[in-house]
Amino acid sequence: MTADGQTRVAVVLVRARNPLNIGAAARAMGNFGFADLRLVNDYDVPFHEARSAVDAAPVLHAAQQFASVADAVADCTLVVGTTAMGERRLLHPVEVLRDAVPHMQDAVTRQDGRVALLFGSEKTGLSAAEMSHCHRLLTVPMRNGGISMNLGQAVAVCLYEVARGAPPQRTLPPASRQASGEELQRFESLLREVLHGSEYDRRFPGNMGEDALHRLVRRLTLPGDDVEIWLGMLRQMVWKLQANARPPS
Amino acid sequence: MTADGQTRVAVVLVRARNPLNIGAAARAMGNFGFADLRLVNDYDVPFHEARSAVDAAPVLHAAQQFASVADAVADCTLVVGTTAMGERRLLHPVEVLRDAVPHMQDAVTRQDGRVALLFGSEKTGLSAAEMSHCHRLLTVPMRNGGISMNLGQAVAVCLYEVARGAPPQRTLPPASRQASGEELQRFESLLREVLHGSEYDRRFPGNMGEDALHRLVRRLTLPGDDVEIWLGMLRQMVWKLQANARPPS
Repeated sequence: MTADGQTRVAVVLVRARNPLNIGAAARAMGNFGFADLRLVNDYDVPFHEARSAVDAAPVLHAAQQFASVADAVADCTLVVGTTAMGERRLLHPVEVLRDAVPHMQDAVTRQDGRVALLFGSEKTGLSAAEMSHCHRLLTVPMRNGGISMNLGQAVAVCLYEVARGAPPQRTLPPASRQASGEELQRFESLLREVLHGSEYDRRFPGNMGEDALHRLVRRLTLPGDDVEIWLGMLRQMVWKLQANARPPS
Repeated sequence: MTADGQTRVAVVLVRARNPLNIGAAARAMGNFGFADLRLVNDYDVPFHEARSAVDAAPVLHAAQQFASVADAVADCTLVVGTTAMGERRLLHPVEVLRDAVPHMQDAVTRQDGRVALLFGSEKTGLSAAEMSHCHRLLTVPMRNGGISMNLGQAVAVCLYEVARGAPPQRTLPPASRQASGEELQRFESLLREVLHGSEYDRRFPGNMGEDALHRLVRRLTLPGDDVEIWLGMLRQMVWKLQANARPPS
C-alpha cells in the first residue's frame, strides 16, 4: 500500500487489557508508517498506563478512545476484523492476511475511503457482536494448529504485510466510495423500522437479532453514492406503513 | 518455504534480556511452524524465567542454550543476521526481509543445509563481533525512519515472511457465492412492488426507471446465501402494504 493509502488505515484495538500490548501495537504502527490508533475500552486504565510509559510511541499520544465499535468505525468504508479462527463458528467469510490487503488497498483508493483494522482482546479476540461490524475477516495463517498470537505481534505482522507490497500503478479513475459505518447504521435502523412496521419481526424474530441484522447489512457492499436513494426508499416505506397503521379519521 | 524446509531453520536469540520477549519469540515460532530455538546468553536468568512462565510455549521447553554464537551456529550452512540498520556502519551487504527468504530457501534445499536466523539483544542488537558470524544480513523495512522493533515482534514478522510463501495448511471456508442474475431479478421485482405500495414511485419517478433500478440493485453485491432472507423481508413488506391498503371489511 502507498504511504498515502496508509494514512487512511485506522488500527482499532477493542478491549485490549495489557498496556504493554497497546504500547507494542503503537510502536509497530510508527515503524510501518501508520498513525491512526483507536481504542475501544470500557475502562481507561490500560490506555492511560500505556500512554504514560517512558518509551510511549508518538502514535499513542495521538490515539483516540471510543465507547463502542460502532463509534470507532463510523467514518470507515471498510471494516476488517482479525481472527485466530479457533473453535468459534464464523459467520463471515475469512481470508488469509495477504489476500485481504488488495481489498484494503482498493478501499483506500476510493474517494473518502477509510479502512478500520480491528483487533480483539488478548483473551477472547473479537466477539460475535464486534465482528458483526466487519465487512471482511482476515486471519494470519499459522502452522500446526497454532494458537492465537500475542496482540502486539499480530498487529506487527498485519501492518508489515499491508505495507509490504509495492504500490500498484493504477491508471483507472478512482472507483466510487463505499458507504461509511455511520451511513450503514442509518440504513440498518430504517430497515429495522420497516421490518417492524410490516410485522416481519413477528414472523422471523431469528433474523432480527442485532448482530444478525448488522452482518446482513454489512455483507451488502452498499456504494456511498447510492446511500441517499436507499435511505429515501426506506423512509418512504416507514411513512406509508405508519400512515396505513393510523386509524382512518 | 515448505514445512519440511522450516524444520531446518533455527532461531538464535543472542543476549535476549527480557523473559517476555523470549516467550513471545517461542510462541511465534510455534505459530508459524518453527521448532529449533537456540539461546546465547552469558547468564541463565532470562531463559529460566521464560521457561517457567505458565503459558510457556512447547518450543521453549525444547530450546537449547549455547555459550557463544560460534557454538550456536556450528551446524548451520547459512547464518543470517537481523539488523535495524541504525547508525552503525555495516560491513555486510544488507537486504530487506523478503529478498532474504529465497536465499534461506535455497540453503535448506541443499543436502545437510541448515539456516540460523540471528536476533540481537533488545537494546543493542547484534554486535560487530556477533555479525561477523553471519553470511548475510537482513532488515525489516520500516517507514519514516522507524526505530527498532520490539524483539518479539521482529521475530514474528521475520518468521511470518519466511513461512509466507508456503501453501496454507488450514483450509479456509470457501468464500460465499454472489447472488445470481435470476435472484437479483426476483429481488428487484419485489423491491419495485414495495416501492409502488409505499408510493415511492409517485414521489421519485426518476429513480424508478427500469435501468436505474437495475443498476441500483446490481451495485449492491448481494451474497447468494442472504438472498432468501432479503426476499422474505420484501415479501413481508408487500404483504403488509397490501393488507393495509384493503378497505376494512
